Amino acid sequence: MDRQHDGSDVPVSTPTPRGRDEIRTAALDAAERLLRANPPDSVSMRAIAEEANITYSLLNRHLGTKQAIVDAMLARFEDRWRVRAAGADLAGALGMMMGDDPDAGTFLRLLAWSILSGDADLSTYRRHSAMHELLPLVDEAGGEASGEGPDAETVVAAGMAMIYGWRFFNPFITRMLDLEGADVERLHTEMGRILRERATG
Amino acid sequence: MDRQHDGSDVPVSTPTPRGRDEIRTAALDAAERLLRANPPDSVSMRAIAEEANITYSLLNRHLGTKQAIVDAMLARFEDRWRVRAAGADLAGALGMMMGDDPDAGTFLRLLAWSILSGDADLSTYRRHSAMHELLPLVDEAGGEASGEGPDAETVVAAGMAMIYGWRFFNPFITRMLDLEGADVERLHTEMGRILRERATG
Repeated sequence: MDRQHDGSDVPVSTPTPRGRDEIRTAALDAAERLLRANPPDSVSMRAIAEEANITYSLLNRHLGTKQAIVDAMLARFEDRWRVRAAGADLAGALGMMMGDDPDAGTFLRLLAWSILSGDADLSTYRRHSAMHELLPLVDEAGGEASGEGPDAETVVAAGMAMIYGWRFFNPFITRMLDLEGADVERLHTEMGRILRERATG
Repeated sequence: MDRQHDGSDVPVSTPTPRGRDEIRTAALDAAERLLRANPPDSVSMRAIAEEANITYSLLNRHLGTKQAIVDAMLARFEDRWRVRAAGADLAGALGMMMGDDPDAGTFLRLLAWSILSGDADLSTYRRHSAMHELLPLVDEAGGEASGEGPDAETVVAAGMAMIYGWRFFNPFITRMLDLEGADVERLHTEMGRILRERATG
């Protein structure tokens, strides 16, 4: 970025966050910037503290371990999606989740990292989950269908499994099936259609 | 395990593997035992060498890095599935993959670990992939359906995405949807049905 020359050579420094909320937000923003671009294992607590312009001990006191930071980030992602899903219909909500939201890639990498470590406390962000917003939409969409289809929970569980599986494992799946040259956009459209058809019975 | 007392206190030792193939097999078997039970990050090259009853330098010379060992394990899992899928029909092959094969959990944890590290060389085991066995089965099953459905590659890609996503992320998905008390067996049956219905148009 250009910095306007004002006659001084003092670099413009990031303001130091102060107080519980400011420190917490600065730390989570810093972690998000670093983890969006780098493998989870390569991002240290010290790097997060430095990026947030706070000391390591302040980071540790206010947020705890790296797993606790990741848990807080996952909850924050879910909060954003819940707000956005709240106003959408089923097609819109599924489209949003199948789409190329860059948050989704980071979210799934962090979720996978947590599952592999075995240390995640999943119960902490259950109440944040955007998945709950989908249940009434599925119920509503399938309202006029016969009663013999799967219930809303099963449809949402299967749909989330497909979305998560595709978004996280697709570098592998496309390679194995020689789909690299294929139109990924079309593949997304087809999968969205499979989910919508299923959801509406 | 009980060991029969034979009057000596010398412990029964694992035979030392000799020669390229024996060393390679012993190392992969040892890695599989350790990685089946422990998070990938916690299993060191030294632990694998010790479990295989070979030296660290022998392990390193014959198999290379930990990522190379993981790549070789993934190819070996695929080889086993390819052999088993070859004789099955579509329902059998999908059932096998949705079922509780303990290899599948280990396979997906290692695949996730590779994706997170960003170092996996996916091209090395493309030729091992069992996914290819599914393509003709899907084509065959959908043979009499109208031509407007998705092609076999899309159905298999969507199906593998759902299977992988469910098997790897289900501790999270079931928690978020309060499905812990639900009949997971029934959920598997329902998902298998969704995949089969889809595959057969």
